Amino acid sequence: MPSSKSVREVQVRSYTGQQVSKTDLLTVEEPLEIQLCFEDQVRTVAITMRTPGQDVELAAGFLFSEGLLSGPEQILRIEHFTPSGAIPTENTLRVTLSTPLPDFSGLERHFFTSSACGVCGRNSFENLGLRTGPVLSEVQFTPEQILALLPQMRQAQTTFRLTGGIHASALFDPQGKLLDLMEDVGRHNALDKLLGKPFLAGRLPAHDHLLLTSSRLSFELVQKTITAGIPVLCGLSAPSSLAVELAEAFNVTLIGFLREGSFNVYSGFDRLEEV
Amino acid sequence: MPSSKSVREVQVRSYTGQQVSKTDLLTVEEPLEIQLCFEDQVRTVAITMRTPGQDVELAAGFLFSEGLLSGPEQILRIEHFTPSGAIPTENTLRVTLSTPLPDFSGLERHFFTSSACGVCGRNSFENLGLRTGPVLSEVQFTPEQILALLPQMRQAQTTFRLTGGIHASALFDPQGKLLDLMEDVGRHNALDKLLGKPFLAGRLPAHDHLLLTSSRLSFELVQKTITAGIPVLCGLSAPSSLAVELAEAFNVTLIGFLREGSFNVYSGFDRLEEV
Repeated sequence: MPSSKSVREVQVRSYTGQQVSKTDLLTVEEPLEIQLCFEDQVRTVAITMRTPGQDVELAAGFLFSEGLLSGPEQILRIEHFTPSGAIPTENTLRVTLSTPLPDFSGLERHFFTSSACGVCGRNSFENLGLRTGPVLSEVQFTPEQILALLPQMRQAQTTFRLTGGIHASALFDPQGKLLDLMEDVGRHNALDKLLGKPFLAGRLPAHDHLLLTSSRLSFELVQKTITAGIPVLCGLSAPSSLAVELAEAFNVTLIGFLREGSFNVYSGFDRLEEV
Repeated sequence: MPSSKSVREVQVRSYTGQQVSKTDLLTVEEPLEIQLCFEDQVRTVAITMRTPGQDVELAAGFLFSEGLLSGPEQILRIEHFTPSGAIPTENTLRVTLSTPLPDFSGLERHFFTSSACGVCGRNSFENLGLRTGPVLSEVQFTPEQILALLPQMRQAQTTFRLTGGIHASALFDPQGKLLDLMEDVGRHNALDKLLGKPFLAGRLPAHDHLLLTSSRLSFELVQKTITAGIPVLCGLSAPSSLAVELAEAFNVTLIGFLREGSFNVYSGFDRLEEV
């Protein structure tokens, strides 16, 4: 069951030829401020609009997938932070590090960004390449395994079934079996939550696994997939041109328009067993 | 016809029971750096992943809808910028102002953000309220007019018809007639492009108009709608809880799940004529 934090009840008027008042369930969206702390230094690194519920995983996954942290040993603790004298808040999370704050110099130039912020501080493919090489996994999946992903994801999207308006990211094992699924109002957040759990457990990179997102396939989702060392990224909708170029450059298999009975492969064809 | 800049051809392998190689069209996604310039000061205010094509409108709409500029008279010129000695680039746009650079102090704290960056520099509804009051328009639409929006939008989504993967935002007049439509790989960008044109022409706020977006209805899209003084925002998918709260607080009519023959109204019910 979705937690009460992720769903809220509202009164709506529904028009379907006639007007009906009814109760509807909405996905909750609230800001989360993520602070990094080392000794007496504190910096806010992000405010993201997220669905409350897995804030610790979200923060850890975000810091990892954006290249700010490389291992869970850098994290001493993650806790909701209450400013002294203020009302306790669930919308600030403080991540206390055992190592000095990461270098923000590449990021500071672009302090204010719009719809696609993953590119902040990343000036080119080359910069990304310096941090992470191509994904080397030789895992393969059959078309039947790919087609079996979506029914497994749908089964696990408990909040989506209630609200019809929340993204999901799911992790699958080398046999195409669902391991975990996270939901969030933002598609980047859903993936960060999903990656945060194995990151904290020291289980990344995950070279033989597969990701499925309910959204389109943008540059940034491919970036995060590469950082996690995951060789296959699938989505229900279209990839962008840059997503395909990045996937090709870093040997990621990109699968789009995954629907009942069909899908398209855009890069990394070798990981699909011939039919 | 969509410009060649917005669409790119790729070879894909399509699986539909059997494997077929075919040519597919993808929506182009490339970064755009937006710089603000006043006298000898230059600042980068955003890098956004966008579909090339209406960069001037995108930059103007972004600066307006994020509250950095209030009127077109503040802009002396907008032009693609070529760093001296470097290869000419279409991915940097310089906006030269007639007035000093806006105050970034509220923004600088949050220089690095994830999926929902509109919240940067906006600490609360109150801050937003100080810049823009509630939308006071008394315009009304009939349910029939609302149901007629989607076919008009579909007709104008020329790139979507080619790629199946690009968002759209459309502006309608008080009679529900389509005035303009913009497409972009990012839903925020599509709205910024759409607002940029009337902003540059001095036609905002547009108190009797209506917006339709192909996407879900998030907090940030409601923010931009309020800033533009537009009283009705419709979307094809679900609103978030915060989107509804913000729409209620600023007297915006929020309509979601607009489909063939049906829609839901979440706030601002008075603007729907009784059936």
